[in-house]
Amino acid sequence: MSFTYNRASTGAWLAGDPVGHRQFAALFDDAPLALEGGASLEHVTVAYETWGALNARRTNAILVLHALTGDSHAHGPDGVGHAMAGWWNPLIGPGAPIDTDNFFVVCPNVLGGCQGTTGPSSIAPNDGRPYAGRFPIITPRDQVAVEAALADVLGIERWHAVAGGSMGGMRVLEWAVGQPERVARAIVIACGAYATAEQIGLSSTQNAAIMGDPNYRGGDYYDQPAGPQVGLRVARSLGQITYRSELELHRRFHRKPQADEQPLRGGRYAIESYLAHHGDKLAARFDANSYVVLSNAMNHHDVGRGRGGIADALARVQAHTTIAGISTDRLYPLRLQLELAELLPAARDVEVIPSIDGHDAFLTETEAVGKLLRNALWR
Amino acid sequence: MSFTYNRASTGAWLAGDPVGHRQFAALFDDAPLALEGGASLEHVTVAYETWGALNARRTNAILVLHALTGDSHAHGPDGVGHAMAGWWNPLIGPGAPIDTDNFFVVCPNVLGGCQGTTGPSSIAPNDGRPYAGRFPIITPRDQVAVEAALADVLGIERWHAVAGGSMGGMRVLEWAVGQPERVARAIVIACGAYATAEQIGLSSTQNAAIMGDPNYRGGDYYDQPAGPQVGLRVARSLGQITYRSELELHRRFHRKPQADEQPLRGGRYAIESYLAHHGDKLAARFDANSYVVLSNAMNHHDVGRGRGGIADALARVQAHTTIAGISTDRLYPLRLQLELAELLPAARDVEVIPSIDGHDAFLTETEAVGKLLRNALWR
Repeated sequence: MSFTYNRASTGAWLAGDPVGHRQFAALFDDAPLALEGGASLEHVTVAYETWGALNARRTNAILVLHALTGDSHAHGPDGVGHAMAGWWNPLIGPGAPIDTDNFFVVCPNVLGGCQGTTGPSSIAPNDGRPYAGRFPIITPRDQVAVEAALADVLGIERWHAVAGGSMGGMRVLEWAVGQPERVARAIVIACGAYATAEQIGLSSTQNAAIMGDPNYRGGDYYDQPAGPQVGLRVARSLGQITYRSELELHRRFHRKPQADEQPLRGGRYAIESYLAHHGDKLAARFDANSYVVLSNAMNHHDVGRGRGGIADALARVQAHTTIAGISTDRLYPLRLQLELAELLPAARDVEVIPSIDGHDAFLTETEAVGKLLRNALWR
Repeated sequence: MSFTYNRASTGAWLAGDPVGHRQFAALFDDAPLALEGGASLEHVTVAYETWGALNARRTNAILVLHALTGDSHAHGPDGVGHAMAGWWNPLIGPGAPIDTDNFFVVCPNVLGGCQGTTGPSSIAPNDGRPYAGRFPIITPRDQVAVEAALADVLGIERWHAVAGGSMGGMRVLEWAVGQPERVARAIVIACGAYATAEQIGLSSTQNAAIMGDPNYRGGDYYDQPAGPQVGLRVARSLGQITYRSELELHRRFHRKPQADEQPLRGGRYAIESYLAHHGDKLAARFDANSYVVLSNAMNHHDVGRGRGGIADALARVQAHTTIAGISTDRLYPLRLQLELAELLPAARDVEVIPSIDGHDAFLTETEAVGKLLRNALWR
């Protein structure tokens, strides 16, 4: 097993991307990044991709923020260095809802990730070894601090819009609350003001599966023959269920056996094969340490922390906000978006995306999401 | 680690219960039990408890069927041999909804279980070693075949009622469909006519956590220093979330830290401690092999299999049926009970138990369940 996903974050490759189309920014070289949890990080690398051109007045920049297992590749085909096509592929491009003829689009890999930005598999500057189990506790607020430093380097004082769903939506909110003057429009999809007990419980159970795998070794597995792939597969299998709706799984799989397998003779049902496939796919492309660190970061999502609660925090927002939820999202249920809309000064009502796909609809319902983005960007 | 939970099923103790108040029946001594999956079992022991007295005409017997991690101890205090008080404790007894002044109540441990009835930790008759990983695939229909053999031994030709929730409800349905003349009243709570894709996916993910634990060893861990307790804890943690409602977890735990722990400094949120506690508790009292075998049995729940589909199967039912669902049950959602009520010839409407507790309400809402049972038993 080799851990190639984050080699670009060593710094040596800052000039260009050895495996994809990313650019890299070296941040916090002068002063370390002080984290909410009390630790700090020296020298943070951010991998990012851009599409379109920044205008002279630097007013047309849009920040697009990815979810848990996403990365900077919001747009473009799959290929070397990009295991999958862009996660919002049809929504970004010339003439697309996020129209690159008009906008300069930036998508960074998140702090703690494993696709070029500093994370657990990155080399720690002080001793030249991967952070591994030493990677500190981080929060969405820390992740936004890194994204703000990237914006500084890019010379973008104020974003025309910041947009994202799920974990991306958490950072949109942290941007809008923590740096209100820098966000003209905030687009938050399938997210809430804080992680709920159930979200924490689900993330924490997924992490327990990874950390209980003996190959996890407290996160220090990069020099071992195998990492905690078994635990990561279980985690993803659980996650995948929560990303879909009960009815969608029912309609798609019902009680169908997988191909010609016979469940009563030890074969699998189709849903079992589907979940195993998603587990295998993720385990092949994603670092378990990043999964744990980012899941924990999501657990710490709470825009109200240290700001007098969520009502006071959300009252700071100056951006025009668009809040969208998905009719069948049981992971980030509509009540969370209704609460946001109620507490955000400049929010309209919640835009409900009607979909059977559950939480995943922020990725799958490209027509509805596209319409929503187009409206939000031009309002 | 010792595996004491099932020692009673060796047969040597059939005369009495060394650790509790159970009785034991030795079944299938003459001819083996032919299983739906094609295998067979020789010599099946069933542990059961009874309350009240069978009347002379043997017409007052009620069969109460437990759920996944339950056992024969539906009623009575905790103590030696009974890790917990009866799972329907307040619902059974003199003057209780299942009134032992009037009824003779029988509750057997299920086939595949680990509390006295033949299961993976039982000694296989042919070689004197535990079945362990060799225990065959079983289904709810097989489990009911064993319960029917127990009824024969007890001389109960027809049950006044068969009642149960969740996995217990599956067996109530199999009784009512498969042996219609033997069931006068069927009471099915929080269950459906078949396991849905999501239920299969959730059970299968829990099993993957157990089977991925290197201490599982394909089920052959009884002679090892440790079993797959880590995997079983993860499985239970996931299960526990699905047994409650999102809103109940939210109200009870919100984002509270556990006691004086500090999540941002590596401490836990209260929900994390709660789930870990449930994992620890189950891992201390339940056999992982039984968890896997019974979860798979539930995956194979489908009253329509080999009977021309669920509509034809349910049309066979002669019992007065009471179908109940729980308003917030996301594991066995109300649509499943509505479907049952629609297809069962003698069912009234679905009785909806209003509760924030989710699926677990069939255990926790004793007042509503008690009222429902009382009505159903006397109709």
